[in-house]
Amino acid sequence: MHPNDPSLKSFVEVAADSHFPIQNLPFGVFSTDAEPAPRIGVAIGDQILDLAVLEKVSLLAAPAGSRVFNQPSLNAFIALGQDVWRETRASISELLRHDSPRLRDDQDLRARALVPMAEATLHLPVEIGGYTDFYSSKEHATNVGMMFRDPKNALLPNWLHLPVGYNGRASSVVVSGTPVRRPNGQTKAPNAESPSFGPSAKLDIELETAFIVGEGNALGEPIPVAEADRHIFGMVLMNDWSARDIQQWEYVPLGPFNSKGFATSISPWVVTMDALEPFRVEGPAQNPEPLPYLRQEGKTSVDLHLEVTLKPEGTAEATTICRTNFRHMYWSMAQQLAHHTGSGCNTRVGDLMGSGTISGPEPDSFGSLLELTWNGQRPLTLTGGGERSFLEDGDEVVITGWCQGEGYRVGFGAVTGRITPALK
Amino acid sequence: MHPNDPSLKSFVEVAADSHFPIQNLPFGVFSTDAEPAPRIGVAIGDQILDLAVLEKVSLLAAPAGSRVFNQPSLNAFIALGQDVWRETRASISELLRHDSPRLRDDQDLRARALVPMAEATLHLPVEIGGYTDFYSSKEHATNVGMMFRDPKNALLPNWLHLPVGYNGRASSVVVSGTPVRRPNGQTKAPNAESPSFGPSAKLDIELETAFIVGEGNALGEPIPVAEADRHIFGMVLMNDWSARDIQQWEYVPLGPFNSKGFATSISPWVVTMDALEPFRVEGPAQNPEPLPYLRQEGKTSVDLHLEVTLKPEGTAEATTICRTNFRHMYWSMAQQLAHHTGSGCNTRVGDLMGSGTISGPEPDSFGSLLELTWNGQRPLTLTGGGERSFLEDGDEVVITGWCQGEGYRVGFGAVTGRITPALK
Repeated sequence: MHPNDPSLKSFVEVAADSHFPIQNLPFGVFSTDAEPAPRIGVAIGDQILDLAVLEKVSLLAAPAGSRVFNQPSLNAFIALGQDVWRETRASISELLRHDSPRLRDDQDLRARALVPMAEATLHLPVEIGGYTDFYSSKEHATNVGMMFRDPKNALLPNWLHLPVGYNGRASSVVVSGTPVRRPNGQTKAPNAESPSFGPSAKLDIELETAFIVGEGNALGEPIPVAEADRHIFGMVLMNDWSARDIQQWEYVPLGPFNSKGFATSISPWVVTMDALEPFRVEGPAQNPEPLPYLRQEGKTSVDLHLEVTLKPEGTAEATTICRTNFRHMYWSMAQQLAHHTGSGCNTRVGDLMGSGTISGPEPDSFGSLLELTWNGQRPLTLTGGGERSFLEDGDEVVITGWCQGEGYRVGFGAVTGRITPALK
Repeated sequence: MHPNDPSLKSFVEVAADSHFPIQNLPFGVFSTDAEPAPRIGVAIGDQILDLAVLEKVSLLAAPAGSRVFNQPSLNAFIALGQDVWRETRASISELLRHDSPRLRDDQDLRARALVPMAEATLHLPVEIGGYTDFYSSKEHATNVGMMFRDPKNALLPNWLHLPVGYNGRASSVVVSGTPVRRPNGQTKAPNAESPSFGPSAKLDIELETAFIVGEGNALGEPIPVAEADRHIFGMVLMNDWSARDIQQWEYVPLGPFNSKGFATSISPWVVTMDALEPFRVEGPAQNPEPLPYLRQEGKTSVDLHLEVTLKPEGTAEATTICRTNFRHMYWSMAQQLAHHTGSGCNTRVGDLMGSGTISGPEPDSFGSLLELTWNGQRPLTLTGGGERSFLEDGDEVVITGWCQGEGYRVGFGAVTGRITPALK
């Protein structure tokens, strides 16, 4: 059976609302107290299947007998190419099926190969050579333009013609759960005579997804839009933490820098494009029609539900502050990659490409506090009491996302982060 | 004697105008037909001293006996820290002195350890995890502001308060000599109804230097400006190729992207900050006084002569189109690094940080064709005949730079690149 078949069941118990049924099989990097060397695993229910163990006993084999799973990042595995990703996922699906005895009935091997997720530490899944962030939600770009530029001409002239993007800072991409220190930075209030340096007073989130490049391109050799999908290995959730007051002062003319570079969090499980295939949908209509190098038809987007919660320190209850969907994004991942490489720019396995803030059409579907509170003018009321315009120390933000199948979910888990006080 | 002593001589012959006397000893990565594995060497005159050979025969040793010179990048060596850089340079200086018999009189070892530079292939000297480009020439920022924004308020309000910078694309940083393909991209003429996609018609250079991070910082732990210098390993020359027409259309609001990401060339020899020490000078006065986290005194700059030549295909003669000096730069490297990390952003060994285009006060000291020809309004006359507004296919650009001592030069060699036609 195809690994995406909705009727597939695993012998590993999977709750109905789990993000990790046998139809998903996302890849990640984990370690345990018993075995502290990071290695590659696949999530199944609340367990992790240790691929390094399976590789060692020859139940999984990379071409030419190379060892790719006993490694601290997915890069070597991803570099083997789409055929190997698919064969590996099919082999894992086969091994985990309820009616496959090989692993199911080998108690010793099961004890070694299945690790409770609760006992594992999850690491950054890929070594990220380059991190690019796009700006592909029309609703987000419009909201920001209305607030900071001209409400009547909120979208800049280039926006409808190309997927605007910029280079981010790869070194500060961290895995979900890493505490995020409030950055210090230079800011200038509109009426202040001169700027000052201190903790950001407008610390924000950006709800994003990101894709991971699975097959790069050589310098000078663009990836055509029609071939872009096969260069994408999978997707993660991303929180592109942003200091709005620092950004507002620094961003002209070369773009955001210190306002973004202090931390970007991603979820630990990479959901493959193959697992997302049943949830592909058409994106929004594009008008004006894109130039030929960006022209694309068919199911270019993904029906991916996204939610953000915020929980202040010491409170029991989290408030859901945003519910939206990836399918609203105007520019597709394939268009982003075709544009990025259209100049001849090369990409490499493990490169991370963020969607940009994902805002939907409704006010509760905006993907940043900047938009949700309209730059602090309309603070959010929290379920447990209190209000929020921007993040306060101790706040925990959780972004989750999943595709809803009939009776199962193909999900991403979560990307979480808690704000710690700025350095003195 | 100190390795910088002007009276030092090597038994290797060094021409008076060579960039690589015994007072320099820059580090690079090279290979040869006879030994194609890239390894680390030091330039001396027109020779390369093969450090992997010296390491093998125990004339150079890294701490704990690790092998750091038989490697395809400087990163492992640089990671050993400033004390090791200095000890290694002192040992090499000692070995190369005219009155040191150890290497001088061992003909067999000399034959293995000294390679004519003309017979070697030079490689990218470092593995670059992050590439940041600043914008620290006041003259350049003023020129650009005059052309594209408001001639009366050419500098944006933040410029005098912080070293404006942005993240560049590390994957497309290439070593000197790599051909540069003219990028295709999206552009829109001011009067055009809609944008189009095709070869850039305003391909430009940017004369820059860049420093290489020698000791990084942990996420959340800024580098104070007073400590920044010891985090810098050395400097290279850089040509930040720029497609002005693509840049003009794409850069709002998130900065340059495809207009820069297609190629950035650096020189192969990393001149250490230790070798540049005798040429440190004060930078320009800073007014207004920078905020305390950027405040710095003393010899924050380097007296480094820079020149750019342009040679059309099929011509014999190159035209010098720019003569300037690094000492004009308003913001220092230490200030750039302190600002970059002030938010808590981490840096890593091998990170490349560009100065931004280096323009001086005189019209022939501008570091880009954009400025030299005032956006094409005043084409340059070439020595061999013809004019240039922007680069044409086949043009070769050479950037050189050196510090002038009494009777010797501590130089960078060159960063060169030739333009090849755009992809159809």
